[in-house]
Amino acid sequence: MISVLGLGPMGQALTSALLDAGQQVTVWNRTPAKAASVRARGAQWADDPAAAVTASAVTLINVVDQSALDAVVSAAGDAVAGRVIVGLASDTPEAARATAALVEKLGGRYLDGAIMTPTDTVGSREARILFAGPRDLYDAHRAVFDTLATTTWLGEDPGRAAAYDMALLDLFWTSVSGVLHAVNVARANGISPDELLPHAQGIVGILPPIVDDLLGRLAADRHDESTASVSSVAASVRHLIAASRAAGVDAGALEALRGYVDAAVAAGYGADEISRIAHMMR
Amino acid sequence: MISVLGLGPMGQALTSALLDAGQQVTVWNRTPAKAASVRARGAQWADDPAAAVTASAVTLINVVDQSALDAVVSAAGDAVAGRVIVGLASDTPEAARATAALVEKLGGRYLDGAIMTPTDTVGSREARILFAGPRDLYDAHRAVFDTLATTTWLGEDPGRAAAYDMALLDLFWTSVSGVLHAVNVARANGISPDELLPHAQGIVGILPPIVDDLLGRLAADRHDESTASVSSVAASVRHLIAASRAAGVDAGALEALRGYVDAAVAAGYGADEISRIAHMMR
Repeated sequence: MISVLGLGPMGQALTSALLDAGQQVTVWNRTPAKAASVRARGAQWADDPAAAVTASAVTLINVVDQSALDAVVSAAGDAVAGRVIVGLASDTPEAARATAALVEKLGGRYLDGAIMTPTDTVGSREARILFAGPRDLYDAHRAVFDTLATTTWLGEDPGRAAAYDMALLDLFWTSVSGVLHAVNVARANGISPDELLPHAQGIVGILPPIVDDLLGRLAADRHDESTASVSSVAASVRHLIAASRAAGVDAGALEALRGYVDAAVAAGYGADEISRIAHMMR
Repeated sequence: MISVLGLGPMGQALTSALLDAGQQVTVWNRTPAKAASVRARGAQWADDPAAAVTASAVTLINVVDQSALDAVVSAAGDAVAGRVIVGLASDTPEAARATAALVEKLGGRYLDGAIMTPTDTVGSREARILFAGPRDLYDAHRAVFDTLATTTWLGEDPGRAAAYDMALLDLFWTSVSGVLHAVNVARANGISPDELLPHAQGIVGILPPIVDDLLGRLAADRHDESTASVSSVAASVRHLIAASRAAGVDAGALEALRGYVDAAVAAGYGADEISRIAHMMR
């Protein structure tokens, strides 16, 4: 038996994957209507968080953020005692640690998880879930977790999965925002999204070795022998901002980048590789 | 015979690839020392831009931006008459059109190019160069261009390659900036670049289908049936900014994103797919 609280698109996908794996699943959601499709597939409905948590030894909670998660845990109250709560919200490390403390205060044990992949991958090896918190909890329930995704345990600190989550979502949403911004600049110049698409995929396709290089340089704190120098990028960013403005598109993210690049040039790092500007963001 | 003016890392790579392809190459650079390695490989040195342009029917100019390119063209002066100038600077569409006008005024013909890939790919099919301007110029010299990269002609408007260049560099540098920002957030939480690397590659690896989906939605102006709603991203971006601040890392790019997301929610688009926020950047 496993319980799933929170039935947005991701909660429904988790429940479906558990049902597919032959689990008996009890569900609860603030808006009962969202349970319809998983109930039709055999999930049991519980009338409130306490009843849902009581139904199983392990409860997955997938809600919008850690404060919503804390509200569900608090609503379950004494039902949490002796049970395992697995939080799958996306929030800061501090908030994940606070939830762990709340669950422990109620006599339960807490494992924090971060789902790193789109809803439609859940239930396949393509999906990725990161876990942090007591290793014995991860080991004890890993067989169930592995039916949902490829999973990784990152450490005892219950904030550690959230820290990875924040860093990786930061990269993800910044990149997505860049894609949408590029579409605007292209459109203002008479280039349609369809025309841009293969070229945009070309850019995305060259990112993996660049990510390797940048993170390798940052790990070693080595920024010499540059192929894209801070100075050349400074010039480029200036043109990008001009092109964005000429296109009538807000240049906020590029302005932030210009700030870091200019600070690196001013600090005498113009000939260094662009990896150097990471230091200017702090 | 072909001339190459501007011998930064990219200009040297272009010259080397031309020499590898058996071309006779004449070079010039403001700082003569940078010509040493290509001269050792057989490139001819010219003492000034006019001599270099005079030496060949076609001259490639690869300098930091279009105003530097205009300065080289102006220095060549009357030598440009009857010759083909191929500009490979990275700058705005307006600046590329101005260079085309300058070259034509001097009696030459201008093709604008944008190199979309790293220096170390030049001379292979992996490299990508976009061209815009007179089709007959591209066709006449395509055999040479194809020894440098996979090339694409985008249209007669000499600003069109620059427009693609700006849109694609926008995407590229915004993403790279996101990578560097993520490293900072990770580090402040005790996660090293080495530890982050495989997970960061995982995120980069899920971008291609997402780029397909987003650009397809924008082409069709369809933002319904969302898998990542504007409202859920609004919550996520708020946590990312909080995590960034807690880590002591500037959150400029994320603040820009929050502005677009909040504007979309305020306009009643909270349930739409994140593609909708492209409209809020204008």
